[in-house]
Amino acid sequence: MKSEIIAVGSEMLTPHRQDTNSLYLTEKLNEIGVSVAFKTIVGDRRKDIVGAIQNALTRTDIVILMGGLGPTEDDLTREALAEALAVKLKRDAPQVAALHARAATWRISMPENNLKQADLIEGATFLDNPNGSAPGQWLETIYSGYRKIIILVPGPPHECKPLFDDECLPRLRDIVPERHLARRTLKAAMIPESQADKLLAPIYTTYTDVETTILAHAGDIQLTLLCTKKNKDLAEQRVEELATKLEEALDDWMYSAEGETLEQIVLYYLGLRQATLAVAESCTGGMVAQRITSVPGSSRSFLGGVVVYSNEMKTAFADVPAELIKQHGAVSSEVASALAEGIRKRTGATLGLGVTGIAGPTGATETKPVGRVYIAVSDAQTTDSFERNFRGSRDRIREWASQQALDLVRRRLI
Amino acid sequence: MKSEIIAVGSEMLTPHRQDTNSLYLTEKLNEIGVSVAFKTIVGDRRKDIVGAIQNALTRTDIVILMGGLGPTEDDLTREALAEALAVKLKRDAPQVAALHARAATWRISMPENNLKQADLIEGATFLDNPNGSAPGQWLETIYSGYRKIIILVPGPPHECKPLFDDECLPRLRDIVPERHLARRTLKAAMIPESQADKLLAPIYTTYTDVETTILAHAGDIQLTLLCTKKNKDLAEQRVEELATKLEEALDDWMYSAEGETLEQIVLYYLGLRQATLAVAESCTGGMVAQRITSVPGSSRSFLGGVVVYSNEMKTAFADVPAELIKQHGAVSSEVASALAEGIRKRTGATLGLGVTGIAGPTGATETKPVGRVYIAVSDAQTTDSFERNFRGSRDRIREWASQQALDLVRRRLI
Repeated sequence: MKSEIIAVGSEMLTPHRQDTNSLYLTEKLNEIGVSVAFKTIVGDRRKDIVGAIQNALTRTDIVILMGGLGPTEDDLTREALAEALAVKLKRDAPQVAALHARAATWRISMPENNLKQADLIEGATFLDNPNGSAPGQWLETIYSGYRKIIILVPGPPHECKPLFDDECLPRLRDIVPERHLARRTLKAAMIPESQADKLLAPIYTTYTDVETTILAHAGDIQLTLLCTKKNKDLAEQRVEELATKLEEALDDWMYSAEGETLEQIVLYYLGLRQATLAVAESCTGGMVAQRITSVPGSSRSFLGGVVVYSNEMKTAFADVPAELIKQHGAVSSEVASALAEGIRKRTGATLGLGVTGIAGPTGATETKPVGRVYIAVSDAQTTDSFERNFRGSRDRIREWASQQALDLVRRRLI
Repeated sequence: MKSEIIAVGSEMLTPHRQDTNSLYLTEKLNEIGVSVAFKTIVGDRRKDIVGAIQNALTRTDIVILMGGLGPTEDDLTREALAEALAVKLKRDAPQVAALHARAATWRISMPENNLKQADLIEGATFLDNPNGSAPGQWLETIYSGYRKIIILVPGPPHECKPLFDDECLPRLRDIVPERHLARRTLKAAMIPESQADKLLAPIYTTYTDVETTILAHAGDIQLTLLCTKKNKDLAEQRVEELATKLEEALDDWMYSAEGETLEQIVLYYLGLRQATLAVAESCTGGMVAQRITSVPGSSRSFLGGVVVYSNEMKTAFADVPAELIKQHGAVSSEVASALAEGIRKRTGATLGLGVTGIAGPTGATETKPVGRVYIAVSDAQTTDSFERNFRGSRDRIREWASQQALDLVRRRLI
């Protein structure tokens, strides 16, 4: 079955705001075997909404209208739908009572206008919205001789998503032919994009019944495998089979088979090895520490870090000899190693990580371009230093460098 | 004049990918006085694209088709437009030659299929695309008796945006009645949302000819004022007038009148006062340092920082007395002050910043809930400590805390 999502709201036709609910609804619809064939964004003009609804009804089976259910004059979705179907709106007495009760609970006065939210499309039923005052509506109807499902959901994400999950999906599951979805998410770090393509495309393109989506960002690749079938075991078997082949191809580039973040995996291995980590960052400026500490409970394995921008700070907080900086430059393999060793010894951590580089846009020298980064990992036995060259903006270079740094720690631990 | 943007591509109907070009195009269109009345997203199915184009032509004056201009079998925008208008596609000889020349420069072989990109809609002209192989197309035509402009632009953002700027906007400016746009962006930090509404709405709602957009995120509020008029001076005067009133109302909550980030402003004041800053972070885990170092040239005023998660690190790197932590707890006003003073003295910075708190989801105590954060700012004369309580997820609390910390530094400097 094909669906269309219509997002109603003039703010989504400005340069500043985008419809994001539809990504969530799309995921949930796909899971039960409903595809999204069109998305339309329309402003708060009644005539435009009426037209958009009629278009949608001519080309899809399920139409989801999102937003425009509130109490203000700009909220016109109910009125527009009634006009598009040439049916009446009827003010629902129990819903009026519910609105009054809600206002009483919140100890707020209720303007007359609020009662609009109790207006029910002829033939529709209300969908309970525990997170807001405007209920959703569900309508099964015949349009130009075809059976259609029309769903009204509120716009605010914290109202829309639970209402869709709790009220709409169960009803849709009863109507849509039963399908089972199997899904796996694999993640890999620092694999060159061209290599990933060459390695993976010949494998996943042969699985035409599994939808493989690849998202890449700053050294992080996420592969999502989705298979929808009538037979649940068969769907899972197909995804498993493909996942196994992709895992083999990804080899040790792969860090997660269940969708964890790289920082979660690093912390997982640190816990497993009963090891601790401390970091000394220059060009990443705290980004590595910030990523690690974004994980709840990271304090068990992460002792802390220093952001040592100046040469003096490198010496004062990570014991990098001033002489070494003078000799090799602050951005050098030697200083990266000294940062890693210094912070490890200073903190008593099992592992020390050092990052120094040129994030740009200025700071390049004759021998060291913008994007040159040195990363070192140190434990009691050895210190290894790596040279990398990243491209792009200051932000991109810092993101790539923090990703590479975390991945080098992971590789030391596995 | 009203426009519709149609984004073509099945990937934008998945849960993973969204059209983002349209935000950019909307901004540029609004600047010349063209509103966007609808956005449609349609997959790579010819029939669907034809229908979407015909819908758009019945309801708007300018239709922009984005994507589906490449060489693959899925690229169907040209064919669909020809069908929708019942006109022919003609392979353009000079464009074929250009494609061959391009392939030769890149030393790549050119499959026959690539030549599709030289197919021109009857009556259209090509729009030069220096960043890709598929040129855009520009068509002025009559549809059902009305004059319409139809524009084809490539989908990849780095091709779409420059082509739209260089080839489409000048042509549109010649056609659209001349309008001038005046714009101002004001930014404010840490103003309570309810207060912002109460303070600002009565002011900006009286300026019905100025469009005021408010975006709020984790203690940061951005107000964009836009006014489009035939008379340039009048547009600027209206925006200035409103901006002045809003600036007065925002008082010292406002940190930028030109759209700078809070970290840029902090660095600006540090430079102005010839002051330097160093930070000691616990719960924000490097987020403050990372935000500051995201600004190019930050090394001139930012000496560096420490991420001191454990009590031992607080003592070792910021000289917080172990006794003090024992007495008041690591999350306390006293420890925040000691962190700020300690890092200031250790680094010789003019200003020291200390942050300690409970980011959650665990770590709350009987007296200190998740979200409790202490922030201290220290200079040679005084150390001030502030208690705050933030709500939301771990990420949200860390974002609010870093915003509050930067704003307290700003307030110390102004």
